[in-house]
Amino acid sequence: MPKMTPQDTERPKVRLYVEHGLAEGQHVAVTQPQAHYLGNVMRMGAGDAVALFDGRNGEWRAEVVELGKRGGTLAALVQTAPQFDPPDLWLLFAPIKKARTDFIVEKAVEMGAARILPVQTEFTNSERVRRDRLQAHAVEAAEQSGGTFVPEVAELQRLDRLLADWPEDRLLWWADESLAGAEIADPAPAPAAILIGPEGGFSAAERARLAALPFIRRLSLGPRILRADTAAVAALTLWQLRHGDWGG
Amino acid sequence: MPKMTPQDTERPKVRLYVEHGLAEGQHVAVTQPQAHYLGNVMRMGAGDAVALFDGRNGEWRAEVVELGKRGGTLAALVQTAPQFDPPDLWLLFAPIKKARTDFIVEKAVEMGAARILPVQTEFTNSERVRRDRLQAHAVEAAEQSGGTFVPEVAELQRLDRLLADWPEDRLLWWADESLAGAEIADPAPAPAAILIGPEGGFSAAERARLAALPFIRRLSLGPRILRADTAAVAALTLWQLRHGDWGG
Repeated sequence: MPKMTPQDTERPKVRLYVEHGLAEGQHVAVTQPQAHYLGNVMRMGAGDAVALFDGRNGEWRAEVVELGKRGGTLAALVQTAPQFDPPDLWLLFAPIKKARTDFIVEKAVEMGAARILPVQTEFTNSERVRRDRLQAHAVEAAEQSGGTFVPEVAELQRLDRLLADWPEDRLLWWADESLAGAEIADPAPAPAAILIGPEGGFSAAERARLAALPFIRRLSLGPRILRADTAAVAALTLWQLRHGDWGG
Repeated sequence: MPKMTPQDTERPKVRLYVEHGLAEGQHVAVTQPQAHYLGNVMRMGAGDAVALFDGRNGEWRAEVVELGKRGGTLAALVQTAPQFDPPDLWLLFAPIKKARTDFIVEKAVEMGAARILPVQTEFTNSERVRRDRLQAHAVEAAEQSGGTFVPEVAELQRLDRLLADWPEDRLLWWADESLAGAEIADPAPAPAAILIGPEGGFSAAERARLAALPFIRRLSLGPRILRADTAAVAALTLWQLRHGDWGG
């Protein structure tokens, strides 16, 4: 395969997230796994084109400067897409089985959540969540979906404590299974958050507490019972359509 | 654990799909795997309660009559929920990696699709789809999500042939990545179908053909690129909200 020059308009085949801020001519380090992927899996070398984003400065066309066993260096050349941030929407969810938790994080990134908060409820099974692994999933989802923003994944925290310190100007949309079709619309824009319960739902005490909160809004996801990962995508769709960036 | 009598109001822990039509006092056969699950995994025996549905007659409370190595017999006692059918909405999708295809089928059942049609497009990788395996997935999704309806999964067919024989009164909602936010609303109800493209999208020829069809409607799924399984849930959400059974 011939080397590509910066003038090539073809889209680079590899798209990577880097922590260092991108700017014209800026050299940025890639991690050991990224260098391995570029050099050994994709068989790239000096001069080959890579798309980069840092989560703040849009997407850049870059080229490989050097790749080694412990890392490598790329040089940012030109910005190819502007930064595109999601609306100020958080997704709160109760972690479930590992594969489904990974899925929820992936879907939240694709659907444009700005922050992902795993919460522990009375019926949540998992006591521990590996935040770093979920954050890596969020990075990978952004790399693969073409996004330029990576939502932060927060540490697992207890729902009751989170609600006790809740910022009152942020509406919390509660995907309430008991509504079953009775839709409650509200013209309120961001900041907002969506709360998806665990399998088995919320306890009676949690339900009573949620219902009494001044910043809560109830959201119906139709007459069928949805798994948590399905519910997350459906709720994000409804919010993005009504209050987010899916409008005309 | 004490045996439950038909008068017990507690919800049975097991919920199974059976092919035989359910009616009061009707004896129905369960398959060998179902009998194994009931007897060996759940440790059930004669008199124990099971929830059954046949896809046409709602949900029934039943009790075990006998369980053996090659199958078993249950007796339907009383209908506990009416039949709940989805709107007349089909989901067409291009099969992708096995795990994601399974996911799309599961999500389509949860979200209330009436029929699931895998289609082969120019950029579809998989030439073969095991229809029976996908149909079993649809049954399992209905069992687990509490639904009483199981959508039929059709054999894989070529998109161009399907479109050539398309019933003209059925609008086809095409999730068109190029729309990027330009929403086209339409008050048309069922019958309808949703078309989700493969990763890599449709070819230029396919796009031109789709755009020219009289029954096509284009659907925007926002400014981000979605994976096929995410797109399926998002598109089903939009349709159910506007034209289906998610309304108030």
